[in-house]
Amino acid sequence: MTSKIIIDTDPGVDDSLTFLLALASPEIRLEALTSVHGNIGIENTTRNALAVLELAHASHIPVARGCELPLIDRAYTSGKNVHGKQGVGNAQLPEPKSKVINQHAIDFLIEKVNAEPNQISIVPIGPLTNIALAIRKDVQFAKNIKELVIMGGAIKQGGNATPLAEFNIFADPHAAHVVFHSGIPIKLIPLDVTYQCLFMAEDVERINQIKSPIAKFIKDATSVYMDFYKSEGIDGCALHDPLTLATIIAPDLLRFEEYHVDVDMSGGVSNGNTFADFMNVSKKPANMQVAMQVRGRDFIELFIERMETLCKNISF
Amino acid sequence: MTSKIIIDTDPGVDDSLTFLLALASPEIRLEALTSVHGNIGIENTTRNALAVLELAHASHIPVARGCELPLIDRAYTSGKNVHGKQGVGNAQLPEPKSKVINQHAIDFLIEKVNAEPNQISIVPIGPLTNIALAIRKDVQFAKNIKELVIMGGAIKQGGNATPLAEFNIFADPHAAHVVFHSGIPIKLIPLDVTYQCLFMAEDVERINQIKSPIAKFIKDATSVYMDFYKSEGIDGCALHDPLTLATIIAPDLLRFEEYHVDVDMSGGVSNGNTFADFMNVSKKPANMQVAMQVRGRDFIELFIERMETLCKNISF
Amino acid sequence: MTSKIIIDTDPGVDDSLTFLLALASPEIRLEALTSVHGNIGIENTTRNALAVLELAHASHIPVARGCELPLIDRAYTSGKNVHGKQGVGNAQLPEPKSKVINQHAIDFLIEKVNAEPNQISIVPIGPLTNIALAIRKDVQFAKNIKELVIMGGAIKQGGNATPLAEFNIFADPHAAHVVFHSGIPIKLIPLDVTYQCLFMAEDVERINQIKSPIAKFIKDATSVYMDFYKSEGIDGCALHDPLTLATIIAPDLLRFEEYHVDVDMSGGVSNGNTFADFMNVSKKPANMQVAMQVRGRDFIELFIERMETLCKNISF
Amino acid sequence: MTSKIIIDTDPGVDDSLTFLLALASPEIRLEALTSVHGNIGIENTTRNALAVLELAHASHIPVARGCELPLIDRAYTSGKNVHGKQGVGNAQLPEPKSKVINQHAIDFLIEKVNAEPNQISIVPIGPLTNIALAIRKDVQFAKNIKELVIMGGAIKQGGNATPLAEFNIFADPHAAHVVFHSGIPIKLIPLDVTYQCLFMAEDVERINQIKSPIAKFIKDATSVYMDFYKSEGIDGCALHDPLTLATIIAPDLLRFEEYHVDVDMSGGVSNGNTFADFMNVSKKPANMQVAMQVRGRDFIELFIERMETLCKNISF
Repeated sequence: MTSKIIIDTDPGVDDSLTFLLALASPEIRLEALTSVHGNIGIENTTRNALAVLELAHASHIPVARGCELPLIDRAYTSGKNVHGKQGVGNAQLPEPKSKVINQHAIDFLIEKVNAEPNQISIVPIGPLTNIALAIRKDVQFAKNIKELVIMGGAIKQGGNATPLAEFNIFADPHAAHVVFHSGIPIKLIPLDVTYQCLFMAEDVERINQIKSPIAKFIKDATSVYMDFYKSEGIDGCALHDPLTLATIIAPDLLRFEEYHVDVDMSGGVSNGNTFADFMNVSKKPANMQVAMQVRGRDFIELFIERMETLCKNISF
Repeated sequence: MTSKIIIDTDPGVDDSLTFLLALASPEIRLEALTSVHGNIGIENTTRNALAVLELAHASHIPVARGCELPLIDRAYTSGKNVHGKQGVGNAQLPEPKSKVINQHAIDFLIEKVNAEPNQISIVPIGPLTNIALAIRKDVQFAKNIKELVIMGGAIKQGGNATPLAEFNIFADPHAAHVVFHSGIPIKLIPLDVTYQCLFMAEDVERINQIKSPIAKFIKDATSVYMDFYKSEGIDGCALHDPLTLATIIAPDLLRFEEYHVDVDMSGGVSNGNTFADFMNVSKKPANMQVAMQVRGRDFIELFIERMETLCKNISF
Repeated sequence: MTSKIIIDTDPGVDDSLTFLLALASPEIRLEALTSVHGNIGIENTTRNALAVLELAHASHIPVARGCELPLIDRAYTSGKNVHGKQGVGNAQLPEPKSKVINQHAIDFLIEKVNAEPNQISIVPIGPLTNIALAIRKDVQFAKNIKELVIMGGAIKQGGNATPLAEFNIFADPHAAHVVFHSGIPIKLIPLDVTYQCLFMAEDVERINQIKSPIAKFIKDATSVYMDFYKSEGIDGCALHDPLTLATIIAPDLLRFEEYHVDVDMSGGVSNGNTFADFMNVSKKPANMQVAMQVRGRDFIELFIERMETLCKNISF
Repeated sequence: MTSKIIIDTDPGVDDSLTFLLALASPEIRLEALTSVHGNIGIENTTRNALAVLELAHASHIPVARGCELPLIDRAYTSGKNVHGKQGVGNAQLPEPKSKVINQHAIDFLIEKVNAEPNQISIVPIGPLTNIALAIRKDVQFAKNIKELVIMGGAIKQGGNATPLAEFNIFADPHAAHVVFHSGIPIKLIPLDVTYQCLFMAEDVERINQIKSPIAKFIKDATSVYMDFYKSEGIDGCALHDPLTLATIIAPDLLRFEEYHVDVDMSGGVSNGNTFADFMNVSKKPANMQVAMQVRGRDFIELFIERMETLCKNISF
């Protein structure tokens, strides 16, 4: 059965690859994108969402523009050094001809989810601001979502924004707090598994055996990203967001454990830390499934194959 | 010139009196009420807003229902012991015949404010949740509000929810943080002045010289409230919210000082503290005008006179 | 009856004046000085303590060297701009011939206090590090002190280190927390009253009608201090520390109120805030008497007279 | 070469076993024990230290009594349910005849360490209060310690006091902060490895093949401890403290990684969390070696053999 999903996103290099993976995957039906601040400002993330869909001949998929600021305050610096000045590395996408829909992302999310209770999965791969605002604006929303599959957090792994905090959560820890305590069924895809999924230079070359604007985009988009990882001593780049979507496409790639996970929003050294109660000290029931293991290379192979198919299937 | 105002409110005894004061005051034009959680749950605050308007033959004024939960989490207990089980003391208002409008308070606020830039003042006399969400949902909103006149905070005065925090701010400190840093022109009416405005048992009797359902409502509504104050060793009850509205009706009752005021949202002992930088240690520019002195008895006299006029002018 | 006191101090311009006031006051018997980090490093505060005593022909009074670091961490910058490079403004005191005693300040304090239970008052006019460590090292110490008369905190007044925090408390909020919760009888002399005690340029001139190295020291020591206050828009300089000692000499200069006062040590925006529970929301019993009013000019006159007497009585 | 060590301890069941291991190990020379609050109050921990030494015919080893309260405040409940009412499970040790030395633990530590610079290793297996106070009282102390081998913290493992915090660190996070930032060479033995070292009921029986009061003590002391673990779903009990000492006896049992480790002392949900900067986000140099792997069963075998030798060598 096909899963209906909405991706809530701040493209972003690996966000963009996630849209491509969604379009290449018959297991899912991409209902819409909703944009949010994060890797770069809302103007750019919204534009990139439209432009990548257009590149893949998928402009029929609606894009709703979301929040430009975190729920409470802005403590972080942007991801420009990671994702390039416009958010998609060195890729030069033409200005998109399509437009966002005339509805705020949070109203769009509320309307879509409430219209089809228990049918829509949302895949947030940026800060959780839109989701938190939708939860607070409409109390039915949380009850009607089928599932959230979230890219975010660091459990046993250290953080990439601070020693404790992963970027998406750190960019809006208050939103994460609202979401984690909402009662919505959650799958969390933290750095613990995403750093096991390294996309290598040779993988990019393999896809580029096929001449396609999409293959070229993948190459241009990932080059800055790979440079950043190299500067951190890592060969290749982690496909955080595509792995998150793959949780729906090929769930057996990952092994999940059930935990009560909370987030620190004190504003101190632990701000944005996502922590599991491994020893069940708090006696609170589990509020999510956390991906703790992944067959990383198997996922990368799946990703490559889907990209090859996409490149072949779209004629330019 | 008449000021167009919207009262954002969690009625609440003194909230209710504020609506009556607004209806009795030619200086202002009450455009709408927006309800919010606070003194009591959203169901009751919304119902009370409708019922008090109905009591005063003012059901033409729209009421929009707002948020039922604070922005992030619920740390406080309700004000049931202060405002009575249903929020209006011992008053028994009939179930209102009028209904809320079919638009969420935050969308209503955004639409109204953006439709008439720099014309609408909002008077929040409950937790600032609705205002904060409107600010975050639409970045134009903050630019188009004329002014916020907020009942909240304790500056040199101690708090009434914790040693440092006043109830409305403590009920949603994160919302207060968003509002205080929004750039909107703000007048803050803290406990420092509201506790100077005590409404006495003999004032209630004076109004009740006129036989009117409104006079009776004032008596019934304030009785539980006065009992609470008596238990704290205070004779009479503080008219926090009506004083806040009076800032627009009779601005010369109060003396304001300009300060940079911030709010602690760390979650620790200082959570919800509103603090002014008196010595300008932070070198930040003032972000609001804070009422630091009031001619308390003059305000109470004004309030009584307006209530008497209202009782006389509405025939039952 | 003469009060036996030990001054715990980080001289510091107004600290130095406090020693002189102690030596000029028959109401008190100065048992010792204990030095601590604060306005400047421990090397300088200890040296200044010895040198000022020597200047006043009082080298028989023992000085014990105390802690060079706050209890937990160093969050503050020094008071060099306020107290001059060596801590006593422009005064050039000769290198003292006397030496500190061969005992750490905290052991000296414990030994003295335990030797004469309920007889020794300690007057801390710097960060509370020594006092806190003595409390933690020996549980009898807190039971045997007669009283602490502390210069520190800001209650209704704003802070001078941050918008909320006074310098001495901010320099070691954890120590203040230990002291405030120790059960020792405390009088707190906060900025609320010390800023009412301004020592003016003409007061300095008046004392200097008498030719004396002490009068000259007062002039030299206060000149940098007055410059700092002028830069803050204040004429004259506040005699924080001498006022604190005057609480023992002439208690009727001040009016005290009893409160439960706590200190924020969360590390956030409120770090070092000393807050009273004015409305008794916490239902905790008062743990100190807080000076909330002072006859400021009367104190300054007292101070001037004592300095004149001291200048006349010591022959050089 | 024999290592000179002092064990700073709050016995405690596994603390007691640590003393026995020290006495049975020719690789180390046990110079002294210093007691501290922790698993149980200071009266009991001090008494237990003396009594266990007496049981092992080692009353010549000095015991100095240390701090009875954490550095700042008491946030935790005691470990009575884990270690039994008097701290050593069901063991009934006779009242010790020996006495503590007439010097506070922190002065004793300072004197010993400064007398033999770079020769003394301290093995803290309780809250770090004594060590922190010694660091703050005497700045030479930190420079002269050879090494701290600390039982404490939880790195990738969850906490046992809160979801994030291990008991020893949680019992005094401020002390841990002082110690971690002191510049002293540190080896940290966190729950990540200690929970790999389970001492089983059959191990106890094996030791009790030898008839000895020591074997009996081991049995009586561990029975409550094992019951606690059983209630948590764990077979056997973790030998946290003996493993820590074994780091000096048989360093190749463990694998260490170098990290910058800090501790949260905000007072919020993360209070007492010890966190490593795995991705070196903070760019701070490593401040300790952290044991991340252990050959658990090999350690247990070592422990059993040493206990057997001790039982045989001491005649009763």
